[in-house]
Amino acid sequence: MGSDELISLTGIKPTGSPTLGNFLGMLRPALDLAQDHRALYFIADYHALTTVHDGEQMREATAEMAATWLAVGLDPERAVIYRQSDVPEVFELTWVLSCFAPKGLLNRAHAYKAIVDENSGAGRTQDDGVSMGLFNYPVLMAADILAFDADVVPVGLDQKQHLEITRDIAAAMNSIYDAELLKLPEPLIREVVETVPGTDGRKMSKSYDNTLPMFIGADEMRKRIRRIVTDSRRPEEPKDPETDTLFRIYRAVAPAEATEELRVKYLDGGIGYGQVKDDLADRVEELLGGPRQRFHELMDDRSELERILADGAERARQIASGVLWRVRAAIGVGPSG
Amino acid sequence: MGSDELISLTGIKPTGSPTLGNFLGMLRPALDLAQDHRALYFIADYHALTTVHDGEQMREATAEMAATWLAVGLDPERAVIYRQSDVPEVFELTWVLSCFAPKGLLNRAHAYKAIVDENSGAGRTQDDGVSMGLFNYPVLMAADILAFDADVVPVGLDQKQHLEITRDIAAAMNSIYDAELLKLPEPLIREVVETVPGTDGRKMSKSYDNTLPMFIGADEMRKRIRRIVTDSRRPEEPKDPETDTLFRIYRAVAPAEATEELRVKYLDGGIGYGQVKDDLADRVEELLGGPRQRFHELMDDRSELERILADGAERARQIASGVLWRVRAAIGVGPSG
Repeated sequence: MGSDELISLTGIKPTGSPTLGNFLGMLRPALDLAQDHRALYFIADYHALTTVHDGEQMREATAEMAATWLAVGLDPERAVIYRQSDVPEVFELTWVLSCFAPKGLLNRAHAYKAIVDENSGAGRTQDDGVSMGLFNYPVLMAADILAFDADVVPVGLDQKQHLEITRDIAAAMNSIYDAELLKLPEPLIREVVETVPGTDGRKMSKSYDNTLPMFIGADEMRKRIRRIVTDSRRPEEPKDPETDTLFRIYRAVAPAEATEELRVKYLDGGIGYGQVKDDLADRVEELLGGPRQRFHELMDDRSELERILADGAERARQIASGVLWRVRAAIGVGPSG
Repeated sequence: MGSDELISLTGIKPTGSPTLGNFLGMLRPALDLAQDHRALYFIADYHALTTVHDGEQMREATAEMAATWLAVGLDPERAVIYRQSDVPEVFELTWVLSCFAPKGLLNRAHAYKAIVDENSGAGRTQDDGVSMGLFNYPVLMAADILAFDADVVPVGLDQKQHLEITRDIAAAMNSIYDAELLKLPEPLIREVVETVPGTDGRKMSKSYDNTLPMFIGADEMRKRIRRIVTDSRRPEEPKDPETDTLFRIYRAVAPAEATEELRVKYLDGGIGYGQVKDDLADRVEELLGGPRQRFHELMDDRSELERILADGAERARQIASGVLWRVRAAIGVGPSG
């Protein structure tokens, strides 16, 4: 981990049962960052607290998310993985940043505005169901990033505004104290890869019960894949790959060459959906069989997981406490001299 | 410090140069709590950060406030005195509480609403000049209190709402997690003692330049007392004690008996304002001469001050970390098992 490498930071909420879509669209690309960055990964349990008010659910989902990262190949020797809640510096910095974050900036945050619009549309009061945590969410996110002097933060297009808010707050503090207190991070906009659809062709979502969870057993996965909705064309008939849910999932999983071969077979006719499903199930098992075994090992004996997270927290706090020390000296809190 | 004593908590913002009015109206009554409470006192430097954006000013004002408490008789062996910023548990708890604090509750906070009204009246946008820190202030205050299982919190009438907000948030968490996670504090409404007026009869305020700062030299204090505005009645004329600024300050400083004697002389005539001023200056010196010397000793050699604050922080964190541990276990963050 050379100190001349740029720092990348990836946070993910512990939502429980990550799917094939999460793996291909988010986890795998984020893992690649570790190749040429000093890569930090955190489980955003305190972000989840805005919605998860069940202690057992929170604890399990957090462990699952940590085990998932490790199962899919995060190397805890090279990268740093930690729970957000294990770095108290983040929360002190959140308060500091809030003193330099205009409330007007947060009034305009997309996620908050969407809720206000929804409330207004339904004839409810504007802030119905909105907690201060939800409203203040972008400031915590700014602290998550700024506490680690992160250079780059991979974000989806929908999160770009959060990074702008982070930069705005950091720039304001740097200007007021006339010092390079906080490093302005750059967004790393994720390439728009095609989203993996759910088994019914709609967006993959737990509420549609159309997901392919990463770590279900091989048989259960094969069963779910067999349920992927297709039209009723027979094997010998030509098929349209672009509108076929099965093909779109296959393309997301298989290498380009295999996908190209299948495309030709679709267009020419001569392959049945059943065979494609079997082939897809084999490929998914190839991709996730190893990670699944590792995931369950980690979940069954938590001591290794806890050891890795404790080590990650220690390394994360080394960085964050340095940043916070710099900030505290500038704003004038803590012991003098 | 018996563990069966109730815990009282007093916070004060480091505003710099406390006045005779602060001493009589706030500091002295708060000190009395230590007689029959496990009394905690903190310097609210992170509250001050909503307005003080100068590191040196913050550091000096914080040291001054700590030295003031000690100079006027706070016994650091019996009571606990600490800087808010030295207890990181408070900021983590602030985030936790924010996830259970409805934004609507904060929209209705008096201090925030007053600013909104002022902005509206001046034709500015509603949140002009409002930072998230200012808006979220009551949640930090709730964490200040709840992190220490405080039983009683002395508040002025204007702060009663803050304690209600604190109780609301604590009750919400206790209900959601079905446990006595957070102790609901009781307000200790300060008796309405007459406020000490400034030397010109208006409210004592730095912006009017009419204050009697606690720790100015005896000569300077006498000079300022001589400047107290009176009418032009000669010594032998009867005077009205109730409307006289000098009498009102005297009454706040002197024992009841001496005040009563002076009242009679006012009504009967036979005493000049000059003599009352000299008498008042003597009494103020008697009250503040010792504390002034101690204050300057503490400010001149900061090592003792820092030692006391470090010790206070350690004792404060022992309490706060116990409370936070309880909360973390319930919400499900941190190491499992």
